[in-house]
Amino acid sequence: MLSTLVTGSVLAQKRPRADSDYDPPQASAAPSSPAPLLQELTAIRDAALTDDYAYRQVAHLTENIGPRPVGSGQAQAAIEYVAGEMRKQGLDVRLEPVQARRWIRGAETAELVEYPGQAPGSTQKVVLTALGGNHPTPPEGITAEVVVANSFADLERLGRQGVAGKIVLFDVAFDKQKGANGYAGEAYGEAVVYRGLGARRAAELGAAASLVRSVGGADYRLPHTGASRAADIPAGAVSSEDADLIAHLASQGKVRMHVILTSQTAEEVSTFNVVGDLRGSEHPEQVVIVSGHLDSWDLGTGAIDDAAGVAVALETAQLLQQLHLRPRRTLRVIAWIDEENLGRGHAEYAKAHAAEVSQHVAAMESDLGASHPLGFRAKISPEAAVRLQPVLEILRPTGANLLLLSSDSPEADLDPLARQGVPALGLLQDGRTYFNYHHTAADTLDKIVPLELRENATAMAVMGYALAAMPDPLPR
Amino acid sequence: MLSTLVTGSVLAQKRPRADSDYDPPQASAAPSSPAPLLQELTAIRDAALTDDYAYRQVAHLTENIGPRPVGSGQAQAAIEYVAGEMRKQGLDVRLEPVQARRWIRGAETAELVEYPGQAPGSTQKVVLTALGGNHPTPPEGITAEVVVANSFADLERLGRQGVAGKIVLFDVAFDKQKGANGYAGEAYGEAVVYRGLGARRAAELGAAASLVRSVGGADYRLPHTGASRAADIPAGAVSSEDADLIAHLASQGKVRMHVILTSQTAEEVSTFNVVGDLRGSEHPEQVVIVSGHLDSWDLGTGAIDDAAGVAVALETAQLLQQLHLRPRRTLRVIAWIDEENLGRGHAEYAKAHAAEVSQHVAAMESDLGASHPLGFRAKISPEAAVRLQPVLEILRPTGANLLLLSSDSPEADLDPLARQGVPALGLLQDGRTYFNYHHTAADTLDKIVPLELRENATAMAVMGYALAAMPDPLPR
Repeated sequence: MLSTLVTGSVLAQKRPRADSDYDPPQASAAPSSPAPLLQELTAIRDAALTDDYAYRQVAHLTENIGPRPVGSGQAQAAIEYVAGEMRKQGLDVRLEPVQARRWIRGAETAELVEYPGQAPGSTQKVVLTALGGNHPTPPEGITAEVVVANSFADLERLGRQGVAGKIVLFDVAFDKQKGANGYAGEAYGEAVVYRGLGARRAAELGAAASLVRSVGGADYRLPHTGASRAADIPAGAVSSEDADLIAHLASQGKVRMHVILTSQTAEEVSTFNVVGDLRGSEHPEQVVIVSGHLDSWDLGTGAIDDAAGVAVALETAQLLQQLHLRPRRTLRVIAWIDEENLGRGHAEYAKAHAAEVSQHVAAMESDLGASHPLGFRAKISPEAAVRLQPVLEILRPTGANLLLLSSDSPEADLDPLARQGVPALGLLQDGRTYFNYHHTAADTLDKIVPLELRENATAMAVMGYALAAMPDPLPR
Repeated sequence: MLSTLVTGSVLAQKRPRADSDYDPPQASAAPSSPAPLLQELTAIRDAALTDDYAYRQVAHLTENIGPRPVGSGQAQAAIEYVAGEMRKQGLDVRLEPVQARRWIRGAETAELVEYPGQAPGSTQKVVLTALGGNHPTPPEGITAEVVVANSFADLERLGRQGVAGKIVLFDVAFDKQKGANGYAGEAYGEAVVYRGLGARRAAELGAAASLVRSVGGADYRLPHTGASRAADIPAGAVSSEDADLIAHLASQGKVRMHVILTSQTAEEVSTFNVVGDLRGSEHPEQVVIVSGHLDSWDLGTGAIDDAAGVAVALETAQLLQQLHLRPRRTLRVIAWIDEENLGRGHAEYAKAHAAEVSQHVAAMESDLGASHPLGFRAKISPEAAVRLQPVLEILRPTGANLLLLSSDSPEADLDPLARQGVPALGLLQDGRTYFNYHHTAADTLDKIVPLELRENATAMAVMGYALAAMPDPLPR
């Protein structure tokens, strides 16, 4: 889950201090030769751009293993698979325990049973999916009138009298135009609040259930799931087409709907973050994280959200092994768990590693898909940004040399570290199609363009190694 | 259903004989005034381009009535609704009986139960839909190994030994590149043969079931239904993503699948073509048909396939009423039934009207969606094409002035008439996105752009009126 796409000032075009920043302390190279670190970064870049390791990882995670909801057998298989890959790379691997709660989707069907112009004896199917956190209907479902709200203000205006006992539909459209113009994250942020909070607000006014128009940009009658704050009423997402249908009919007269949204929240389950260390040669106690999240929603196979992120983090270590490179600091590859539900994976990591947070030099994640990377979103200081300019220059030929500074953590899994001042960087992909597929059944391997995944692996590996190998840690 | 997009020679740029062709026999207009018929066509065009009648019809048919599979209560409601609209227009309306067979979709689920890399205890969902003509599985489904065939030749190569007792997947992709380049119909034709004939061929070799990769251009995990020749085995379509998944896994090792595809073919049902005549002023016995088909598949609401066609045919009569125009010949508006299943609607019409076929001057249908019309596909003589040039000139400002000649009937519903020499014309829409939605759950009202629907209504009304009002009938 991405809460908001970072918007921030593009870094002012200050010049980097000097390439000599990147010289090892006692550089013995001839004065005219390029700094060794920059040579290494160039070698990583060129190797990453021609390697298919990351793609093979995404293929295995999505096709052989499949959907990976937290607590499922498939999530556990993925944990073991990733740990095995890390061991093959020679990393020091730990499965760090996380207590999570498993949520299991059940039946999800709906139909309009009364509406203007209804043909005798007929009903109309409504395509919907339960949101995580759904409070289940009885097995036979519920039937109630539908009331449409276009905003929370609209809901308040309807009040308890207009809402109690009814099914509320929050019909707030994802702004496709913004999405097409490169502000998909902003469009997502504007609409996703209704997915997150709608059920709770509707429940406060006595609603029987809460539905949200799917938060996404496609028009293929696909419902988008996602997390919803727990409320005492069923919570689902209808496709944009079905939201249109209901809103149009409700504007003409009474609409009643039958909804079945069963699901269960199983007891607490024991699961794991997968953590693999490539021990630093000079400052092993200093840590740089490269990461993605291993759990996914259950509808698709979680290719762009976020097998791709895990794969490019794994590839960072793979490339260093292949090129026989060992950074000064410890490069820590993490496959987070439970990003999509309660975020227990990153919370537990922050707790377990509280004493070492000050030794975390930087943390990176990729969790905005696998389209062409434009660069990075980062919660770092301007001084740190200046220090990264030579690294961005190495990435310039790949097009991933933009650095957007943000006051928020660029990725949900980095939140706890970023809040404690750890420089946090997220890969910034071209997000124009991301929300067409995100959290839907169509998040599958074919959505990954192999070349673009290589560009992402390049950006992660070059930046990750730079952060771990540069002479001084990135200033906070 | 569209069997193939017509490809043919663009009409050679001969000049029309003379505008005076379009003068009424005893024209009394001043010599310098434009021919009255061309004035009328211009008036129809300008009225159609600003009218929302057709859109309101599509909205009612798709949203208030919904999916209209033949024999359903919704199809019957649509028949009555369309007949009512025709009566309001002052047409002479008949419900012409058609005996059809109702096909009712049942449960349709599938999962891979064995595959390489399978996580212990897990399965993988496969998104699929039953094809019309499906021979149902038992309620508990069937489980069998999957064998992938990339062509009929491939199936033959596998032979009875490779196929018997197995589930065959015909993994033949819709050529998206062709679709994007404007040859969507050709791409469709190449792939749809596997949907139509695959089950029968697989059954001949003893297969347990037959699945086809969905015939369509989108990548949103949408299965496309459609007709399949009856065979003694279950017949379904999996989404393109699921076809990829199965093919990739099957290339690595054994894949077994559990499939439930229940459906029932109910007894024969009595249904109707809706036929409304605007009686000709001079030659009422001569008939020009404008039409679309009223039945739809059940997954979506049949907006582009083909409420749009019915709506633009209705609008032709609506505009003539509004403009107080009455053609020389009878303009016959038809909403065909059973286009999607057995084609009994047009077959029955041909039988019932066999004695009058020679009096059918021309027949038109719109059944390629509602995108911007480029002009017409036509099975007409070159002489007839020349005669239509002034009409195409009237349509030039709308962009619908192309005439593609074909040796095949341009639309399935026109087949019987076209075979008997009746000049047959289909609206030729920009088909680049048509097969993304066609026969899927996403064929809904929002896929219709109101302006483009008006352009289609314009093309149908101008050409329909021209054919019915020109001094001499179109040469055969």
